[in-house]
Amino acid sequence: MIIIIKAGQEHIIDELQQRFGGTHDVFTHHNRVALEGITEDELNPDERAAAEQIIDNPPKAVQGSRLFHPEDTIVETAHSKIGGDHFTMMAGPCSVESAEHVMKMAAVAKEGGATVLRGGAFKPRTSPYSFQGLGEDGLKYLRAAADAYDLDVLTEVMDQDHVGMIAQYTDIFQIGARNMQNFSLLKAVGKTNIPVMLKRGMSATIDDILNAAEYIAAGGNHNIIITERGIRTFDNKYTRNTLDVGAVPVLQKLTHYPVIVDPSHAAGHTEFVIPEALAGVAVGASGLVVEIHDDPAHAFSDGAQALKPGEYLEMIQKAYAIRDALKTLVQEKSEVEL
Amino acid sequence: MIIIIKAGQEHIIDELQQRFGGTHDVFTHHNRVALEGITEDELNPDERAAAEQIIDNPPKAVQGSRLFHPEDTIVETAHSKIGGDHFTMMAGPCSVESAEHVMKMAAVAKEGGATVLRGGAFKPRTSPYSFQGLGEDGLKYLRAAADAYDLDVLTEVMDQDHVGMIAQYTDIFQIGARNMQNFSLLKAVGKTNIPVMLKRGMSATIDDILNAAEYIAAGGNHNIIITERGIRTFDNKYTRNTLDVGAVPVLQKLTHYPVIVDPSHAAGHTEFVIPEALAGVAVGASGLVVEIHDDPAHAFSDGAQALKPGEYLEMIQKAYAIRDALKTLVQEKSEVEL
Amino acid sequence: MIIIIKAGQEHIIDELQQRFGGTHDVFTHHNRVALEGITEDELNPDERAAAEQIIDNPPKAVQGSRLFHPEDTIVETAHSKIGGDHFTMMAGPCSVESAEHVMKMAAVAKEGGATVLRGGAFKPRTSPYSFQGLGEDGLKYLRAAADAYDLDVLTEVMDQDHVGMIAQYTDIFQIGARNMQNFSLLKAVGKTNIPVMLKRGMSATIDDILNAAEYIAAGGNHNIIITERGIRTFDNKYTRNTLDVGAVPVLQKLTHYPVIVDPSHAAGHTEFVIPEALAGVAVGASGLVVEIHDDPAHAFSDGAQALKPGEYLEMIQKAYAIRDALKTLVQEKSEVEL
Amino acid sequence: MIIIIKAGQEHIIDELQQRFGGTHDVFTHHNRVALEGITEDELNPDERAAAEQIIDNPPKAVQGSRLFHPEDTIVETAHSKIGGDHFTMMAGPCSVESAEHVMKMAAVAKEGGATVLRGGAFKPRTSPYSFQGLGEDGLKYLRAAADAYDLDVLTEVMDQDHVGMIAQYTDIFQIGARNMQNFSLLKAVGKTNIPVMLKRGMSATIDDILNAAEYIAAGGNHNIIITERGIRTFDNKYTRNTLDVGAVPVLQKLTHYPVIVDPSHAAGHTEFVIPEALAGVAVGASGLVVEIHDDPAHAFSDGAQALKPGEYLEMIQKAYAIRDALKTLVQEKSEVEL
Repeated sequence: MIIIIKAGQEHIIDELQQRFGGTHDVFTHHNRVALEGITEDELNPDERAAAEQIIDNPPKAVQGSRLFHPEDTIVETAHSKIGGDHFTMMAGPCSVESAEHVMKMAAVAKEGGATVLRGGAFKPRTSPYSFQGLGEDGLKYLRAAADAYDLDVLTEVMDQDHVGMIAQYTDIFQIGARNMQNFSLLKAVGKTNIPVMLKRGMSATIDDILNAAEYIAAGGNHNIIITERGIRTFDNKYTRNTLDVGAVPVLQKLTHYPVIVDPSHAAGHTEFVIPEALAGVAVGASGLVVEIHDDPAHAFSDGAQALKPGEYLEMIQKAYAIRDALKTLVQEKSEVEL
Repeated sequence: MIIIIKAGQEHIIDELQQRFGGTHDVFTHHNRVALEGITEDELNPDERAAAEQIIDNPPKAVQGSRLFHPEDTIVETAHSKIGGDHFTMMAGPCSVESAEHVMKMAAVAKEGGATVLRGGAFKPRTSPYSFQGLGEDGLKYLRAAADAYDLDVLTEVMDQDHVGMIAQYTDIFQIGARNMQNFSLLKAVGKTNIPVMLKRGMSATIDDILNAAEYIAAGGNHNIIITERGIRTFDNKYTRNTLDVGAVPVLQKLTHYPVIVDPSHAAGHTEFVIPEALAGVAVGASGLVVEIHDDPAHAFSDGAQALKPGEYLEMIQKAYAIRDALKTLVQEKSEVEL
Repeated sequence: MIIIIKAGQEHIIDELQQRFGGTHDVFTHHNRVALEGITEDELNPDERAAAEQIIDNPPKAVQGSRLFHPEDTIVETAHSKIGGDHFTMMAGPCSVESAEHVMKMAAVAKEGGATVLRGGAFKPRTSPYSFQGLGEDGLKYLRAAADAYDLDVLTEVMDQDHVGMIAQYTDIFQIGARNMQNFSLLKAVGKTNIPVMLKRGMSATIDDILNAAEYIAAGGNHNIIITERGIRTFDNKYTRNTLDVGAVPVLQKLTHYPVIVDPSHAAGHTEFVIPEALAGVAVGASGLVVEIHDDPAHAFSDGAQALKPGEYLEMIQKAYAIRDALKTLVQEKSEVEL
Repeated sequence: MIIIIKAGQEHIIDELQQRFGGTHDVFTHHNRVALEGITEDELNPDERAAAEQIIDNPPKAVQGSRLFHPEDTIVETAHSKIGGDHFTMMAGPCSVESAEHVMKMAAVAKEGGATVLRGGAFKPRTSPYSFQGLGEDGLKYLRAAADAYDLDVLTEVMDQDHVGMIAQYTDIFQIGARNMQNFSLLKAVGKTNIPVMLKRGMSATIDDILNAAEYIAAGGNHNIIITERGIRTFDNKYTRNTLDVGAVPVLQKLTHYPVIVDPSHAAGHTEFVIPEALAGVAVGASGLVVEIHDDPAHAFSDGAQALKPGEYLEMIQKAYAIRDALKTLVQEKSEVEL
């Protein structure tokens, strides 16, 4: 149950917390109180009188819901504002390959307007015998490259015991698709105050990802970014996954967290990454995260889906053209209405 | 096998047709000859010498493939050019409901720049007890409305025995998702010269739809438009289907037929139709087909996904803004390169 | 709404039919009346008084539902009883290849205890250039082979205009997965009184197939057999489709029509056909339909999934062993309870 | 590459290990050597001469493959032999609810012939606010109940930091579907010598699960049991997941690890658990794992899919009837062949 408290009755918020907080999950956001597992008839007359509105049966993932938190969450890092009207580019190599290489890629990312440098130092590879990443050395290279170009670092954490160590290097944790329901890991990053980019699992429903995000929020960390990266469907002959563009406005309706699109893992093949990126922009995502590489044929991982620097810059140009065109329309409309 | 014949050796085309046409499927397009079921070692020395290139193992759906027919097919109707650089809007009610109503919807469609009026007179309803459409009367109303506004008619044919009758009213046949592999129906429209819009089946792979299109082409009708309208996946709680935007560039790479997007059936709910439509535009579709209704709550069918006139016009404005932004970029780039 | 009429009040059945039959779909089965689109408050006091029970909101596919028709439908043909406690084997080649070959296959089918000979004369091939079947000649060979061994004929009808012609040769129509929602075809076989085996579409939900069956029932033909033949999922590397065994008890709960299993199209590879067939038997299907071939490598179609005669006989032996074991248990239990 | 070494040439095995073991993954099993990332032309003449057969391009998950390890793995615990010709019943409550309750359930499990008692003390709940399990107390109750009835304990480990603690109580670790690609967790249990039951992820392909198992094997733990528990498909209205029975023989062909079936999570509703269990037996699974509860309506979790004691015993009886019937056939056949 969510109770929206009337102006002037805010003292009831404390009262509710005291009455129910010991035995139930109680969350507050401005004048809204979410009481997990409490029903209306358990409220006393004063509490009921203080309610402007009572929302029964909100979603389980209540802290992430618009019903509890109507306004957009803007995740702020040193170099980026993610969410709301902002549009954020995140780019970098799939794997950190060397200090030099990631530095070079950081330059490219920056040139295209990215404010976040992505790169994997711990890689969730399907096979245990595939390259597993450079580990902490990779993080050092990544951090140095990001610092050289005033970029934020985004890197995957796969192991709950690495959270503290990776926290020393990164500005944003990435939780990968395969770990979307690794609840111990979600709890571990939930205890930090570092932003978390949570990627949708391959067969995660919309509700699944919102509940996964709630595990992070339940720990007190509300700096969450949700990423649509393609789902597994019956056809993966030509694309690696199926980009579920419709999930973007659906998520934006249901949750206040920023939603971004990863066209690289969705498309899986360079030639389809740009059109899927543009679809992501047009559908209203708050940003893109893409993989870039200057020599995809020799990339340590996922070369087939990496954009070359020139392709990346072409994508950026088109992405911004779409953003600007839609923004101009909105502005013109506002002016007409004034 | 596809043989690309050298300039000056075109007489070999006839020879190949005579040698193999009696026993095999032989197709020609300019200087390309597709020989179904023939291998290179069955060619004689003259034929081999005349070959600029031999393409082994082309796709089964060879007439639809870019390997056989590299240039874009532009489907031309009285009021529309569909494919290539053209962008075509198709709009109208899900069902034709009355002469007056479809006339009103035609006015709205036209106002938004549509050149094609869609409307169903024979409806493929899941249940036999649901409204099945107005039949031939509906076609008359639809035709009259289209004529009043100089629009083309697009309407579904579900029954091979209706092909001749519907041909009297329509400019484009629609084959619906459920009939995508109704081969008798595909053959029947393949014998006409009326353009056919073929909608992707709910679980049709890319290869499936190309093979379905080939059934039409095999009959001699090459005026084919392919429509991505969302596929069936594990999550349909918030959207009716999953719009597979990635299928658009994949199809455009593989086939020369125009590819358009139907965001209405994909989204299933009005609030998500516009973003999905814009994703379709940004991903590069040659057009959109959308359902509109002035009173969705009382629509005879699929009201939940119909755009109201104002929403439709908003969508159009945004769609064209994206088209124009991308076009401008391409032009600027061309000028720079000159 | 379904009304169960009290004993002694059967005259109300006629009354309801007269009152509502002109404007609504009204169906009766023994003392049950289904009124499509009528609500309880439209009944008059006499009608209400005559009701032993009123079932609101039955499924749309009401004639197929257990709520309307609780007892099992037994489809009877010259040589088979399909449904209820009966277990029916159906076997034969994918395609009828020649008079001699189908005769040979009929002998094998019979030896294994089959009472139905399957064989395709009109084939729904993905590509228009693949072998499309022997047509009416194939039907003649199939009929002759079935007659020689006292078997029923089961063959696919793909084209509504073939219904009358095929009716001369077959005992059971097959509607294939691709045509499961070819409503014109469903209506056409619904007007005959020949049993129809309806195969589940590749991405048809349980409700979809029940509604498809209702199109046949709506025409007056209630001799319907439903076949689970595998659905399309994200993994088809090792099996062609995913046999949805759970659909069998689900369908048996919801509908009175017999439900059988086709392990050949589900497995797609001979080595997995037998285990999937046995799963079908154990889960409670009323029969199996399998493809057999004495020389799969040279089969005209689907050789990869054909059982050789020896494999077929092995499958039968195991299938009957499972049936008998489960039957014995049930009998022992009944005796104990007496 | 896998090299099968000729009899009498076993010294080459050591040689290969010394030559390549420092830089590559080298695994040996009897006279088979798997060399990850080595190609035939890197072998020297002696090595080549010692090879009875060279298998190029084995699957990445080489230690789990039949090509490397042809004979069945039999996982042995105090009370169970799992795999090969053995058939193992595993049963118990979804969650350990109390010392008394799990004791009662252990009695029921035992009565039905189970040798393994399942029960969750750490629960992977979709929502952070749902009951998360009794933790270590639950493990104590579970251990006590198992010991009282001479049963093995099977319980889920969700957190890599719990491996050592849970190891004190359990005979078999369960890795749940959501953690199938939690590689840190797989590595952690791979370092123990306690058997691991690995459940297939909701959208895991066959190759995915084999690769996940390889993460465990790569750590040195080869006591692995694979569980098919239903996959996520487009239809979950009547069943929670789609039991992929075909995966059982596919896995048995590809890997030597035992494969068992979990009909409870597949079906999701009690009434369909038994038929799905029987399908699992008939398809050839080496065992079943089922959830039981004496009062499903008040179960702490997943009550909808729990079998009541009587239902469980009915299932067992039928399951053994099928096993025995198939076994008898095999024995009769062997005797005939002697």
